[in-house]
Amino acid sequence: MEFTVRTRRKRELVDITDRVQQAVRAQEVSEGLCCVYVPHATAAVVVNENADPQVCEDLLDALEKLFPDGVWRHDRVDGNASAHLKASVVGPSKVIPVVGGRLALGRWQAVMLAEFDGPRERRVVVVVR
Amino acid sequence: MEFTVRTRRKRELVDITDRVQQAVRAQEVSEGLCCVYVPHATAAVVVNENADPQVCEDLLDALEKLFPDGVWRHDRVDGNASAHLKASVVGPSKVIPVVGGRLALGRWQAVMLAEFDGPRERRVVVVVR
Amino acid sequence: MEFTVRTRRKRELVDITDRVQQAVRAQEVSEGLCCVYVPHATAAVVVNENADPQVCEDLLDALEKLFPDGVWRHDRVDGNASAHLKASVVGPSKVIPVVGGRLALGRWQAVMLAEFDGPRERRVVVVVR
Repeated sequence: MEFTVRTRRKRELVDITDRVQQAVRAQEVSEGLCCVYVPHATAAVVVNENADPQVCEDLLDALEKLFPDGVWRHDRVDGNASAHLKASVVGPSKVIPVVGGRLALGRWQAVMLAEFDGPRERRVVVVVR
Repeated sequence: MEFTVRTRRKRELVDITDRVQQAVRAQEVSEGLCCVYVPHATAAVVVNENADPQVCEDLLDALEKLFPDGVWRHDRVDGNASAHLKASVVGPSKVIPVVGGRLALGRWQAVMLAEFDGPRERRVVVVVR
Repeated sequence: MEFTVRTRRKRELVDITDRVQQAVRAQEVSEGLCCVYVPHATAAVVVNENADPQVCEDLLDALEKLFPDGVWRHDRVDGNASAHLKASVVGPSKVIPVVGGRLALGRWQAVMLAEFDGPRERRVVVVVR
């Protein structure tokens, strides 16, 4: 199961909860593990709050402070080292239990694609076992 | 499989290794993958040393320096942005192999619930596949 | 499935993509989830770019700035708190989908063992489900 997301900005969090939930339903597994994976080295998957979308902006700001643009070796090669560092630390996948055929997300948890070097078309792979 | 943990402080790491190990045994899977998941946006799961509990205090201090309290947009809404940022980066789940019916933890690895906005009652979901 | 890696430096990223790919093939699972796990509290698993190995050096530098050596409580016990903090945040495992019998890695993604307190002999556990 795979879908694509077209990101619109250099850095953004895109809520993909509904599309992941659909992918889970399509796989008809009642109890198991769902892995949400991005096959990219400058994007990541985040599970956190999106009810107040400012949490997402805060996260992008915080990561920018920790991994600023333009001061790394790889910036002389490709100009996007900051994005690689953020993606390495946040990670390309999150694993979420499936209970009763649905993601066992808490009330304040959303699944988000983290774009660190957009805008681009990104792939999201969802596997349930 | 699910259990609850009552945390006692605003920020703490609670060792849940034994309870996760019990949950694994109860599921009677000899070889597989164990996902330890918290359905919360201000808590996380950490796998690291607890033989010297100061490692846990160091981690809480380090995260506090990287994501300080009170300087984020979401703080005007809810006052707990720092906890969301820590939870986003550390992550709501860890996946640990099960070998011979037990978690394949190394000698110095413990499984810990990371509370970033307590005290609260937290749920821990353990799924083995 | 398990293999060992002998690290050569105090801090380094060792590309283990081929060995993980071999382990996946050996398990003859066509579609599933692959967990790459290190049973150590001062090492971790990273998925990111190694085509330009400077990305790896940048990551080691960035983590060193965030979690410097010698300023933590655990340093009085063991001298390697920085390594524990890096390992806690990066995490001991990464989960990667298996599609068509192979890791669903993107073009710029490699699987790397992150050594934070070497040189040592490290174990890598690979489980596919």
